[in-house]
Amino acid sequence: MPVQDLPMPPSPAPTSPAIGGDNDDEAWVWAQIRAEARRDADSEPALASYLYSTIISHSSLSRSLSFHLGNKLCSSTLLSTLLYDLFLNTHSSDPSLRSATVADLRASRIRDPACTSFSHCLLNYKGFLAIQAHRVAHKLWAQNRKPLALALQSRIADVFSVDIHPGARIGKGILLDHATGVVIGETAVVGNNVSILHHVTLGGTGKAGGDRHPKIGDGVLIGAGATILGNVRIGEGAKIGAGSLVLNDVPPWTTAVGNPARLVGGKEQPKIHEDVPGESMDHTSFISHWSDYVI
Amino acid sequence: MPVQDLPMPPSPAPTSPAIGGDNDDEAWVWAQIRAEARRDADSEPALASYLYSTIISHSSLSRSLSFHLGNKLCSSTLLSTLLYDLFLNTHSSDPSLRSATVADLRASRIRDPACTSFSHCLLNYKGFLAIQAHRVAHKLWAQNRKPLALALQSRIADVFSVDIHPGARIGKGILLDHATGVVIGETAVVGNNVSILHHVTLGGTGKAGGDRHPKIGDGVLIGAGATILGNVRIGEGAKIGAGSLVLNDVPPWTTAVGNPARLVGGKEQPKIHEDVPGESMDHTSFISHWSDYVI
Amino acid sequence: MPVQDLPMPPSPAPTSPAIGGDNDDEAWVWAQIRAEARRDADSEPALASYLYSTIISHSSLSRSLSFHLGNKLCSSTLLSTLLYDLFLNTHSSDPSLRSATVADLRASRIRDPACTSFSHCLLNYKGFLAIQAHRVAHKLWAQNRKPLALALQSRIADVFSVDIHPGARIGKGILLDHATGVVIGETAVVGNNVSILHHVTLGGTGKAGGDRHPKIGDGVLIGAGATILGNVRIGEGAKIGAGSLVLNDVPPWTTAVGNPARLVGGKEQPKIHEDVPGESMDHTSFISHWSDYVI
Amino acid sequence: MPVQDLPMPPSPAPTSPAIGGDNDDEAWVWAQIRAEARRDADSEPALASYLYSTIISHSSLSRSLSFHLGNKLCSSTLLSTLLYDLFLNTHSSDPSLRSATVADLRASRIRDPACTSFSHCLLNYKGFLAIQAHRVAHKLWAQNRKPLALALQSRIADVFSVDIHPGARIGKGILLDHATGVVIGETAVVGNNVSILHHVTLGGTGKAGGDRHPKIGDGVLIGAGATILGNVRIGEGAKIGAGSLVLNDVPPWTTAVGNPARLVGGKEQPKIHEDVPGESMDHTSFISHWSDYVI
Amino acid sequence: MPVQDLPMPPSPAPTSPAIGGDNDDEAWVWAQIRAEARRDADSEPALASYLYSTIISHSSLSRSLSFHLGNKLCSSTLLSTLLYDLFLNTHSSDPSLRSATVADLRASRIRDPACTSFSHCLLNYKGFLAIQAHRVAHKLWAQNRKPLALALQSRIADVFSVDIHPGARIGKGILLDHATGVVIGETAVVGNNVSILHHVTLGGTGKAGGDRHPKIGDGVLIGAGATILGNVRIGEGAKIGAGSLVLNDVPPWTTAVGNPARLVGGKEQPKIHEDVPGESMDHTSFISHWSDYVI
Amino acid sequence: MPVQDLPMPPSPAPTSPAIGGDNDDEAWVWAQIRAEARRDADSEPALASYLYSTIISHSSLSRSLSFHLGNKLCSSTLLSTLLYDLFLNTHSSDPSLRSATVADLRASRIRDPACTSFSHCLLNYKGFLAIQAHRVAHKLWAQNRKPLALALQSRIADVFSVDIHPGARIGKGILLDHATGVVIGETAVVGNNVSILHHVTLGGTGKAGGDRHPKIGDGVLIGAGATILGNVRIGEGAKIGAGSLVLNDVPPWTTAVGNPARLVGGKEQPKIHEDVPGESMDHTSFISHWSDYVI
Repeated sequence: MPVQDLPMPPSPAPTSPAIGGDNDDEAWVWAQIRAEARRDADSEPALASYLYSTIISHSSLSRSLSFHLGNKLCSSTLLSTLLYDLFLNTHSSDPSLRSATVADLRASRIRDPACTSFSHCLLNYKGFLAIQAHRVAHKLWAQNRKPLALALQSRIADVFSVDIHPGARIGKGILLDHATGVVIGETAVVGNNVSILHHVTLGGTGKAGGDRHPKIGDGVLIGAGATILGNVRIGEGAKIGAGSLVLNDVPPWTTAVGNPARLVGGKEQPKIHEDVPGESMDHTSFISHWSDYVI
Repeated sequence: MPVQDLPMPPSPAPTSPAIGGDNDDEAWVWAQIRAEARRDADSEPALASYLYSTIISHSSLSRSLSFHLGNKLCSSTLLSTLLYDLFLNTHSSDPSLRSATVADLRASRIRDPACTSFSHCLLNYKGFLAIQAHRVAHKLWAQNRKPLALALQSRIADVFSVDIHPGARIGKGILLDHATGVVIGETAVVGNNVSILHHVTLGGTGKAGGDRHPKIGDGVLIGAGATILGNVRIGEGAKIGAGSLVLNDVPPWTTAVGNPARLVGGKEQPKIHEDVPGESMDHTSFISHWSDYVI
Repeated sequence: MPVQDLPMPPSPAPTSPAIGGDNDDEAWVWAQIRAEARRDADSEPALASYLYSTIISHSSLSRSLSFHLGNKLCSSTLLSTLLYDLFLNTHSSDPSLRSATVADLRASRIRDPACTSFSHCLLNYKGFLAIQAHRVAHKLWAQNRKPLALALQSRIADVFSVDIHPGARIGKGILLDHATGVVIGETAVVGNNVSILHHVTLGGTGKAGGDRHPKIGDGVLIGAGATILGNVRIGEGAKIGAGSLVLNDVPPWTTAVGNPARLVGGKEQPKIHEDVPGESMDHTSFISHWSDYVI
Repeated sequence: MPVQDLPMPPSPAPTSPAIGGDNDDEAWVWAQIRAEARRDADSEPALASYLYSTIISHSSLSRSLSFHLGNKLCSSTLLSTLLYDLFLNTHSSDPSLRSATVADLRASRIRDPACTSFSHCLLNYKGFLAIQAHRVAHKLWAQNRKPLALALQSRIADVFSVDIHPGARIGKGILLDHATGVVIGETAVVGNNVSILHHVTLGGTGKAGGDRHPKIGDGVLIGAGATILGNVRIGEGAKIGAGSLVLNDVPPWTTAVGNPARLVGGKEQPKIHEDVPGESMDHTSFISHWSDYVI
Repeated sequence: MPVQDLPMPPSPAPTSPAIGGDNDDEAWVWAQIRAEARRDADSEPALASYLYSTIISHSSLSRSLSFHLGNKLCSSTLLSTLLYDLFLNTHSSDPSLRSATVADLRASRIRDPACTSFSHCLLNYKGFLAIQAHRVAHKLWAQNRKPLALALQSRIADVFSVDIHPGARIGKGILLDHATGVVIGETAVVGNNVSILHHVTLGGTGKAGGDRHPKIGDGVLIGAGATILGNVRIGEGAKIGAGSLVLNDVPPWTTAVGNPARLVGGKEQPKIHEDVPGESMDHTSFISHWSDYVI
Repeated sequence: MPVQDLPMPPSPAPTSPAIGGDNDDEAWVWAQIRAEARRDADSEPALASYLYSTIISHSSLSRSLSFHLGNKLCSSTLLSTLLYDLFLNTHSSDPSLRSATVADLRASRIRDPACTSFSHCLLNYKGFLAIQAHRVAHKLWAQNRKPLALALQSRIADVFSVDIHPGARIGKGILLDHATGVVIGETAVVGNNVSILHHVTLGGTGKAGGDRHPKIGDGVLIGAGATILGNVRIGEGAKIGAGSLVLNDVPPWTTAVGNPARLVGGKEQPKIHEDVPGESMDHTSFISHWSDYVI
């Protein structure tokens, strides 16, 4: 069954020449973003002010992102200066947050054919922005600053229509495509390199409290409108068809489709995509498996 | 089939010692909210300003709610002062609105395990806030102030992504969980103590005008993404599975699942939950009925 | 199967006496809108300021719409004056944009029984407003002003929770009812007089780049929550049931329902609705076809 | 010496037919203001929204004034809803504040030839608005709510460039013309029917604390840029020339001019102006006294 | 007596190579402004967004100025889009307004040694901006759109602390230096190439209505804090000392100083400054005349 | 002659027990400010949100001041986040700025009898806030970031009506009382412990460029409305009467009054005030000298 919008990039994906660690990678991506923004500012004067204020005037990706999120998520009662401060202090001081941001940027750039530049993702992708804000809320939650974490969740839900409980643990390299209506519960766990389309629910079982939300393995792809409920395991590399309702475990490298969901794909090649050209998981390979079920 | 996020509270639910009427109950809940906000303000200075402006500085629940809604729903062309005035005048003068607000707060506090305090619901739950604003819009609609009611509907739809026609009649003790994408049509009626998850549609039949939307009985539970269309009756205590499409009546105490929906549960114990410990309807009891249909 | 909210208007639909071209029609609709707004301002002083600023003070529909969109879509980093200028210059100079706006207003007024006036649609319908803003973004995209077009897309997605890629080609006379959660991909094409409910996805196939999104024929009706994926053709006058998942072509005048979708309707009368009384396609005629599949 | 802008009205001054008390007078003035605003809204669509939101939509002068002041004096950290509430509760519950507002409106309307309507004063005169906000701050001061009173003083000083200590006691029927730069100290007292031009200082003596600011009698006229320092008495009906520096008492019905000030006028006719046609004090009668001192 | 801040420019004043008319001159100045802004944006990233939004993104001086004024003078009840529209329509359609703007820019650039670039004046000089907004208000006044003109006056007085009645007629090439506290009455007339410092009052006489304010000739210089009252004539090329109080006519090419003012300068060379190097009136030549009067 | 508002504090001035350096002093003052704000928040719930957001939630005086200035001086085109960042980075990294802020707070607290707490000054004194913002602008100027420094000057002039050229050098322990209308030119120098009332001008001579503004010695007191023009020296401990016009040097410990100014005081006791109880210069001692000149 085809899931949407998740192909290989039409042109060779951008790669960092850096062999060094995360810092080098962050620096390279940030340099790309600034170069893209400068190019766009030159070609589109009407957008130049926006590009300077959100990207070009900043000295780091953390500052740019914190500025952008602060201005997106602020309200008349939660001021942009407060949020900016909160994001900047949290994000710039935590290397794991910064490397996750870079991995998410790469995920969008490589897996979403509509994503033509890093700066496009940074500026315009509500899924990307919601995830970055969630990571800060999650860190606050872990520090037992729960009221502040929940206030952030609320702002993310209002502004982006993405509702992720700050307790949820989310890996790196996440693509939250289109993102409107995504709901992820408190005890959900999402692995690395997962792609989640809009209207996806990782919901609870109805068990009071406790561990009651799905566990999503690395490299999983979840189609638009899929609903996964309860403390079930979606194995590594599995694919969940659009509109599916999943209430049980799904084995690794398997495809589940339908309402309620049925397993339709056999074991696939167990090769995790890593967002580098030539190694990317083919998010479309299970289309053929589902063709019998459709018109 | 498991529906999500609707279990019993892990700890004993808070109860009001008051034996008196609604006023006592409102006073008790408001005192709780203020105490919670003060505690959070003490522990989290970054949030204290927000908590004081939205809760602690106000002399009543009506004022706090009106302030919060006014600032959430205002825009550059619909000023916060106008909306604040409208909410305050309507809400503080109508005891039934105030008791409905209290019942909704209790519903979230008891039925949603992620809801750890009344103030969390008041501040952060877009479903709760959307319902409160709708109640005011509905009252305006009943007073034939339709253009203003429709303008409110539009603001609620923009800000919370919850689209409830001001003509719809909604009972008390409603939990609108996560809430993004909920659509409720003009002639819909929703009973008391109903729980509705996100992406739920109570839509029209296509009949021109007239009574064309669902009638939802007391204590009904509607799972995420369920679509109920037409002037159908969902009986008291019924449960609608996540992702279901319902086009016909569902008898009381029955469960309907699937697209299109099938009845899967027999008659259950006809005991309406009333959000007090020991009497709460078990929203999860129908999970077993659906296990055959899933992977 | 009933799809919702798309009947004939209960009262005779308003018609323009003008026999002339689009200009006459636009003038007539604009005159109606102003008259409605004046009537509402007289009856509801609390709303008068809003009605004057958004409608009555303006000399043309283009100005009113540009003002309204500029104030709806602005942010602290994309100022209302910039957006107003952009919308006004683009909209007022392009007769095809203006006639599309008029056709969309008519579509809402005629097909949606909850739409009681043109001004109600202009002011309050997020689907209508999202489409109008998209048309401007699409024109910018065609002029190769892509960064600006994508920034507009992002604002529309944030504010209205409607995510339409600026590359998508959308016809005239579109009703985007309720609209929350609608996603339309880059290479999608939507014909004239199409009605699309909320949560509808016109998504990609997973093919990298290229022509990968659905093609929707004239007069098609797509129910709430339907997901259509890939470069498939939905023929003229076809109907897609609520909650359906469509992965293959659907012939003209045919109905598809279910997840995955099945064809349930035979060929119907090939008469395209044109939003004038007596000629309107009956969006509800296929309800009977689906009754077997439901409870 | 000519003082400026304080002549008789060119046309017969408006009078209230009401013989009743302050309530009747307030009602009559409010009716005038609304009629003026409606007339202006009809003739100037671009201003209609502003006139409706600030005047026409309100049910009383207190509400209109509180709305206008709340929106003028708010900031990102002192919200309009808070200020609106504060002004409305204070102003509407205190008949003396309301009658003072009416008297000030009359003072501007009668004494300032540039003031062509009551609504012009209510909307546009920063001196009038600063005085009304001060009256509320003064009441808070008297209730020992000093931090809030001082915060209001600060906002008035920022927005209107008028700095009146909340402790200062100000009479009724005050015309604060142009108003920029007016400074009035904590222990100053200003009588009724006083006219004060811009840049006027009623400052302290340098004595530590205590009663250290001027006492201004009824019907006094103080020209632009005059500086009066210390606990001196300016007698009833006295006139202080523009640019004068006054450090000693000035007897009633006397004129003082120059830096330092000299008495130049003899005793004048001891007839207090009361802002009704034919009885108004002639604010220009002392011009002749000063003609020797000028070029 | 020295008046302040009005010397020759230290470096050769910029000249337009254009020999053509006003249009050429406007184009040349606008090109200079954009070049300055681009240079500053390159050197100061923190300011680049501001410079792009206010200057570089605009296609004409009228658009840039209208955008800047709209955003400076807007309030929560008078939206920036409304003001932008008003300024743009008025300014861009009236060549005399445009040439006056250019002349005022030149006046600041040449006469104020602290004015180092045209863009500095356009962006930062509240006197310049107040005058430009006044010119629009004056045109509205002349068109009998008085309520709107008075609302503009009020906004200018709030934001810039400059209070110019919209009826006042102001020439070209005006330098309103520092500007805070300037008050100019309804029937005042100010000639061309006049320099006015802060705190200057051109006030009324106290005559009821009628022609009651000063008439200021071409090339006059009025020092800080000077007060000129009544329908007096200040002759061409005259100079009024700082802090002076002027109540009678002042002959051309004469200097008046003191409170009350005395004539101290004899006839000077009757050569009007025209803001071109070598021909500029020496605003400081009368310093020597006053030296006897000072300490 | 009495100058106003500058006496000894009525109660013993607050002293720091710290014997250490500036850091200890800053810490002590900051602790006082927080304690005051907490006390006020407890007693006045309506102000608590404001006090938390501006003071109590911050971890240092630099953060509190930067937040407050950022929100006061921001506009729709110069965002609060940008200004906050700029102030915070500049202020927190420069000990001399921080010690100047503390000295200014002490100056207001000790010399102004209306200043009843440090927090009152920090929150409400536009003169204090204008000086702090100027110090940042001056530092930018010194770093040759002139366009940004001038933009700050412009915002300070708009918001506080205080116009200080960023080139001006200002000492520590400055009291800018009331502050409206103060103008200080580019080459002015102001010593330590200087008190300046509102409407004071330190203006230029008319010499083109160069060093053309006054030099004000330590401990000088300048009364309201005084105008000092040209590169003149006002000696240590001198006093300038309100409304004076000073065009020549004034010797140390001397008093100058009048327009034009005359020396009226003999040499006084050469004891500089240092804002500690018992050592404070008596700002009122020259009153007796001037009594002959007045009425």
